[in-house]
Amino acid sequence: MSKFWSPAVSELTPYIPGEQPRERLIKLNTNENPYPPAPGVGAVLREFPTDHLRLYPDPESRALRESLGRTFGVDADQVFVGNGSDEVLALAFQAFFRQERPLEMPDITYSFYPVYCRLYGVERRALPLNARWEVDLDAFDSDCGGVIFANPNAPTGHGHGREAIAGLLERITDSVVLVDEAYVDFGGESAVSLVERFPNLLVTGTFSKSRSLAGLRLGYAVGSRELIEGLTRVKNSFNSYPVDSLASAVAIATLEDTDHFEACREKVITTRERTRRQLESLGFEVLPSRANFVLVSHPDFDAAQLFVGLRERGILVRHFNTDALRNFLRITIGTDDEMDSLVETLELLCA
Amino acid sequence: MSKFWSPAVSELTPYIPGEQPRERLIKLNTNENPYPPAPGVGAVLREFPTDHLRLYPDPESRALRESLGRTFGVDADQVFVGNGSDEVLALAFQAFFRQERPLEMPDITYSFYPVYCRLYGVERRALPLNARWEVDLDAFDSDCGGVIFANPNAPTGHGHGREAIAGLLERITDSVVLVDEAYVDFGGESAVSLVERFPNLLVTGTFSKSRSLAGLRLGYAVGSRELIEGLTRVKNSFNSYPVDSLASAVAIATLEDTDHFEACREKVITTRERTRRQLESLGFEVLPSRANFVLVSHPDFDAAQLFVGLRERGILVRHFNTDALRNFLRITIGTDDEMDSLVETLELLCA
Repeated sequence: MSKFWSPAVSELTPYIPGEQPRERLIKLNTNENPYPPAPGVGAVLREFPTDHLRLYPDPESRALRESLGRTFGVDADQVFVGNGSDEVLALAFQAFFRQERPLEMPDITYSFYPVYCRLYGVERRALPLNARWEVDLDAFDSDCGGVIFANPNAPTGHGHGREAIAGLLERITDSVVLVDEAYVDFGGESAVSLVERFPNLLVTGTFSKSRSLAGLRLGYAVGSRELIEGLTRVKNSFNSYPVDSLASAVAIATLEDTDHFEACREKVITTRERTRRQLESLGFEVLPSRANFVLVSHPDFDAAQLFVGLRERGILVRHFNTDALRNFLRITIGTDDEMDSLVETLELLCA
Repeated sequence: MSKFWSPAVSELTPYIPGEQPRERLIKLNTNENPYPPAPGVGAVLREFPTDHLRLYPDPESRALRESLGRTFGVDADQVFVGNGSDEVLALAFQAFFRQERPLEMPDITYSFYPVYCRLYGVERRALPLNARWEVDLDAFDSDCGGVIFANPNAPTGHGHGREAIAGLLERITDSVVLVDEAYVDFGGESAVSLVERFPNLLVTGTFSKSRSLAGLRLGYAVGSRELIEGLTRVKNSFNSYPVDSLASAVAIATLEDTDHFEACREKVITTRERTRRQLESLGFEVLPSRANFVLVSHPDFDAAQLFVGLRERGILVRHFNTDALRNFLRITIGTDDEMDSLVETLELLCA
């Protein structure tokens, strides 16, 4: 605590960043893609005119928004881009969720949503998952200030289909429904094609997972022109130039390489299903996942102890120290070799 | 206005981005550096391991903060980095200036400060410049909620020396004094060496101007450990990963090339002084500048008309449509050739 801080700052909990291993570990703790980005990225970097960096980027990020528009079959003015989907989400909270009625979300979902609620003074109503650990779409109240959830959800991995999302949107028409599709490319169904039909639907996405660009911090939102304009107004109050020129050029190269994108996500899906069967044969319960991670528990072994045992043997996974998730591990899907090492190590620990 | 927006959003003025010319113009309107970044940047891009982009960046940006620390002779934990100094400034407003007493600033200074005040509910007290268009350091009240100004100031170009800043800090000890040094490398005196002596001094800077990296959006702050911790707490409430891996590597390359840095800023300073003399011989009043721009007016010609005349002849400069600045043009210092074209065109327009 410092006398120079704004009073509200002392209430913020000091953040402890996720472990950044310096030694050589198998890193299955932050849902990174095990495969490199599209090969075209190397060419973009080699050929980028460095003199161009002396100029400010396009404040409207037209080239990147047009490329995303082509990818999703929408106009560029239905697309917003920012420095990572965390930034896009934070702007969406300010643009849409500072309402009199509470924002509704599942009680188990991306952990940054409650943080943004506190930060922007948004009242929050948390709804329990159903018995199958799925987001309970029927539980959202049509008289709410907004709805937000990840689909597929994190850290459970369950994803609703497009028709289920459409059903929710037929019911909730007076406030924004934000569907966070960070993980959708690993077997989920995107709701992007619904934005023409539902002007209150905002779909967010990221280049960090299926496009293998976590290092660059690039995210986006797709929605109606009026939602995109709301986001743009809030963004422009902070900073006129959100996405840098180099990151934008790299991102476009990943959108243009459909083959690489499809091949990598297929590999992740295949490895996930193989890993699921192997873990089940070791006695683990594995929640069905449409994401690049699985949430697992073992009836006979404590998750925290398994976490420590894996860490000691050079494998990093994620353990959440909350009541609901204490007996689970979230394991990112790596390469087949990495997952083989994981399974072999768990076999030892669960012997 | 949309029924889906948070009520506060409709009060935000739609932003009109600065002109991004598609035709070939001489661009002297946004204070970009006319020279490319350090040659090492090309090597960084060619040799960057693209596979590394699949991983999140270091959430603590250690390498970049250590490089800035070496540049400024401070420890890495006295350095904060963000996506452009606009982001760093926005975080500083939240971390330090949400106080009961008003934030004090000059009435003519960087136009984003009042925007942040409105955005974060910070009361603002604007103090007039003195008769020589300089920030009046004696006017700041020691019983304020904080002080902010650019030094050199924008868009006037006047810069106070280090001893004058130290004098202010001897008087104002109970709240944060933020000195925005975006333009300091073009002949100003940095206050960075005062941070050890004054725990309430925060100095901000940018890679956009003297490091020729406006395209990348990189800014920083240097101050006492307690101020840096306050900024870090606020930053971590939004987004754990601020500066991307590639931008960080490029920025470090520009910090390491002292020769290129010195040569470019010397060229800009020399061109500025040459341009000043030429404009004065055309009858312009040119405010003394320690920045990479000059603020000029002509007793016989209307600034808005000169702006239009220059624009029609392919030269973009900046005209501010406010009472105090209506009769001025802010002209970025470009290459000698660009400034020759400017002077020749003004010679025609003022004939």
